[in-house]
Amino acid sequence: MLDLALLGTGGSMPMPERFLSSLLIKYKGRKILIDCGEGTQVSMRLLKWGFKSLDLILISHCHGDHILGLPGLLTTIGNAGRKEPMVIMGPQGISNIMKGLLTAIPYLPYDVHIAEVSELSIMVNFNDNGVELKELDEGNKSHGDLIISTLELDHSSPCIGYSLYVPRRPKFNPQKAISNGVPKKLWKSLQEGKPVTYEGKTFEPSMVLEGKRKGIKLSFITDTRPIATIPDFIRGSQLFICEGTYGDEKDIERAIENKHMLFSEAARLAYEGEVEELLLTHFSPVMDKPEKYAENALRIFPNTTIGYDRLIRRLNYP
Amino acid sequence: MLDLALLGTGGSMPMPERFLSSLLIKYKGRKILIDCGEGTQVSMRLLKWGFKSLDLILISHCHGDHILGLPGLLTTIGNAGRKEPMVIMGPQGISNIMKGLLTAIPYLPYDVHIAEVSELSIMVNFNDNGVELKELDEGNKSHGDLIISTLELDHSSPCIGYSLYVPRRPKFNPQKAISNGVPKKLWKSLQEGKPVTYEGKTFEPSMVLEGKRKGIKLSFITDTRPIATIPDFIRGSQLFICEGTYGDEKDIERAIENKHMLFSEAARLAYEGEVEELLLTHFSPVMDKPEKYAENALRIFPNTTIGYDRLIRRLNYP
Repeated sequence: MLDLALLGTGGSMPMPERFLSSLLIKYKGRKILIDCGEGTQVSMRLLKWGFKSLDLILISHCHGDHILGLPGLLTTIGNAGRKEPMVIMGPQGISNIMKGLLTAIPYLPYDVHIAEVSELSIMVNFNDNGVELKELDEGNKSHGDLIISTLELDHSSPCIGYSLYVPRRPKFNPQKAISNGVPKKLWKSLQEGKPVTYEGKTFEPSMVLEGKRKGIKLSFITDTRPIATIPDFIRGSQLFICEGTYGDEKDIERAIENKHMLFSEAARLAYEGEVEELLLTHFSPVMDKPEKYAENALRIFPNTTIGYDRLIRRLNYP
Repeated sequence: MLDLALLGTGGSMPMPERFLSSLLIKYKGRKILIDCGEGTQVSMRLLKWGFKSLDLILISHCHGDHILGLPGLLTTIGNAGRKEPMVIMGPQGISNIMKGLLTAIPYLPYDVHIAEVSELSIMVNFNDNGVELKELDEGNKSHGDLIISTLELDHSSPCIGYSLYVPRRPKFNPQKAISNGVPKKLWKSLQEGKPVTYEGKTFEPSMVLEGKRKGIKLSFITDTRPIATIPDFIRGSQLFICEGTYGDEKDIERAIENKHMLFSEAARLAYEGEVEELLLTHFSPVMDKPEKYAENALRIFPNTTIGYDRLIRRLNYP
């Protein structure tokens, strides 16, 4: 079970009636934020999910509307009492920009680690000290907390899309455990995916588990033109959160020039990627009523929702 | 005539119901901003006074709640079409911090000049390219657009107070001009304070002007403890905008520890400085109804107003 909230749904500039595009994810009592424009912390305060347990911030790209809320948010998190290190992940160039932004907040009571990435898949585990990032391998693939994957997008600045996958452990089969002669006291560890050596013999999790079970997949794509690699990257997502900067089909030239998408282009990606639901966000400030253009997405992908600030969703295992 | 608006009245952190303390001044069609926390540009948008003609930003000190809105605001001003350079004035250390913040917005279409100051008085003239800062001397003292003075305050980081003085030209006296034998065609230039040489003879403004006239004085003091130099610095202000972080007298220890002021301390400064009106701002986020504590200021200085976001005032020559 994973909870999420769109903290904002606007692009370009913070507006009185709409916060900048940003997503907050709550999972296992910890939090992950994707993107942080000016004002994101104010929307977080309205949401009332707290600040201290935010362990990981994923940044799509280093344009102001996606990063300029970071110094203020990091300060507020410090004021909330955080001492554990914070990890910020983002595309090429983010280290230098964060170094610059951090000069304005030299008084942070915790460390900030910057991970500059391009395309990868990593395992993220949560613990009491924040997050631990690990290489993804067969051993932890179905037993870690979260797998984060990134995709290079096509924007005017290095930009990455994110997918988050919450693996689901294979089912525990007591018959299998008994027939494999696994002592009962080892069942719990093996069920949690940890091999155990007992009385000189090594027991593997596969001796008590069976089959594969689908986890929860969520993907977040902004800012970009629609590119051929996106459908595979988002494939099978329960929820695909995607930029729809322009609703009106007439804005196609503007979309191409500014490297953004029309609602219809996002909908086509959702269709090709066979996702369950499309949630549109990152609306141009000149588009005051995005709902007006919903039909441009709905005719291509019927399960489309026009995002709004502090829209909340709970995703469960299928 | 000078117009001003409190863009925000909060201290510490941006809150949903209150923007961070900041003052926008409109004079001669140009604008000056004092302080710029996260969200200041959103309040400016609500105010609808525009972005492009903002020429000068005065920063009291480099704590996040007074500076972290700068990168976003500078970006928005660029998007509004500004090409003319921008001047940002602030205390010791601001150059380094601005250098850091500017790494996040490398795409600004205009230059930003940083003036790191301690205590000074300078003449500011507005022109089509923004502002021109000049040394203050007898010649321009009553004929420039604006005199900005600064005072070192007592906060936990280098911090300066500002006073703005709009000089008023001495009165034109046609009798005096005639009796001094000043040709009529020179009257206008002399009235504007410019000496003119005509037919081998130099005519001085004093040959057509008489007396001194009081200008408009406005002062802005935040964040600080009340210190002995403040009353003289603010003396005779039509409007004294001052921090009142805590309304409750019981918060005196907190005020001392955090280097802030009680309402009553601000009111005492207003009384000692013989200002016309005190306008309180920079309220602690835990104080949700500052009006509740108004009496603590009113009993010392009756002409006190509790500030609120986008309170507007017009100051005229006395």
